[in-house]
Amino acid sequence: MDDPFAEPTDTREAILGAAFHALCEHGYADLTIKRIGEAFEKSPSLVYHHYDGKDELLVDLLEFLLEGFETTVAGDAFDLPPRARLDAYVAAMTDPNGVDDERAPDGRFLAAMVELRAQAATDEAYREHFDRSDRVFRRFLERSIREAAAEGRPDGRGIEEGTAPGGADVDPAAVAETLQTLSIGAMVRRSTTTDREWTGAVREEASRYLSRTLPAVDPDA
Amino acid sequence: MDDPFAEPTDTREAILGAAFHALCEHGYADLTIKRIGEAFEKSPSLVYHHYDGKDELLVDLLEFLLEGFETTVAGDAFDLPPRARLDAYVAAMTDPNGVDDERAPDGRFLAAMVELRAQAATDEAYREHFDRSDRVFRRFLERSIREAAAEGRPDGRGIEEGTAPGGADVDPAAVAETLQTLSIGAMVRRSTTTDREWTGAVREEASRYLSRTLPAVDPDA
Repeated sequence: MDDPFAEPTDTREAILGAAFHALCEHGYADLTIKRIGEAFEKSPSLVYHHYDGKDELLVDLLEFLLEGFETTVAGDAFDLPPRARLDAYVAAMTDPNGVDDERAPDGRFLAAMVELRAQAATDEAYREHFDRSDRVFRRFLERSIREAAAEGRPDGRGIEEGTAPGGADVDPAAVAETLQTLSIGAMVRRSTTTDREWTGAVREEASRYLSRTLPAVDPDA
Repeated sequence: MDDPFAEPTDTREAILGAAFHALCEHGYADLTIKRIGEAFEKSPSLVYHHYDGKDELLVDLLEFLLEGFETTVAGDAFDLPPRARLDAYVAAMTDPNGVDDERAPDGRFLAAMVELRAQAATDEAYREHFDRSDRVFRRFLERSIREAAAEGRPDGRGIEEGTAPGGADVDPAAVAETLQTLSIGAMVRRSTTTDREWTGAVREEASRYLSRTLPAVDPDA
């Protein structure tokens, strides 16, 4: 993946960049403000000046990265057709190191995300972040699903009753929640097990699910 | 859920029971051998005698619980028809407190599992456990999928070429990996966010996926 902190514009970004690199290197449990300070090129005491502890810093890092994703999505930086975009999203979460795209997150980053996400089981600040984060990714997926459903139609818009098997009765939001849940599960399995045999099966089944489901999705729902 | 440690048969089980209850109460980060000792009715020093640290104890707890699941499954204690068993599995992982079944794991237990699973991102002993654990659950799901696919056939066995849409070309193992990945994602979302609106959508889409996929699964594959 591109380094999101290659050109920090202020002290906050420089600190977050140091935290990002230290997190990918040491993992959550072994990360300390001291280690972040060591990865920080200016005075480590500046880190203590800005943040009360490592969790406050890491939640700010998560927010910064999420804002970056929102900016990327809003700017249409994903220059893929909607259906290909959905397949690429599942692939990036399932087998990040097998994806030949410099924008795909790498394995160490996703493993760190899994560790931070687990903090939300007991920490309110992390939980609020992941509530917001899941909404952002859900909206991205839902928009892509509406576009992919419209793409398959002759007029590029809604479908007439009865033209799809069982009618156009599938809610695009429900498909988005399902892809989102599957992707989180893939990211967690990928980061917490050694076995990789399942990754191809999950990508193929997600693709089959989309191919069967998109014709029944009403893009105007 | 039933307390798997209601009647410990030896000191190991008594210690694991104390750890289980302390883990559900305090969460992983705040769990200490001292707190496990306090939840243990005999001498806390016995805990130190049996285990070198909290992670060694918790990996042994995970193994014990997994062996309990394997015994339950081997004994056919899940007295549900195969298709209902699959829906119940997804439901228990997605919305444990909404499942009216005393065998379903409760929310605090699943949250603790998510925290322990995150340790596998950096700890080899946890990683080995979750590799094994994923294989056990995958085999349970795969067997249920084969049985559910056979159940839908007039003769209860394999299908002839061409009788299912696209032929019987779906590998039951691939469907099992997908359900397993979706269930892990659901468990993680459930434990790390406050939003619950997605749970119904995921259960419905998983059910629709199974209904569309099972006719194309060859139970003898």
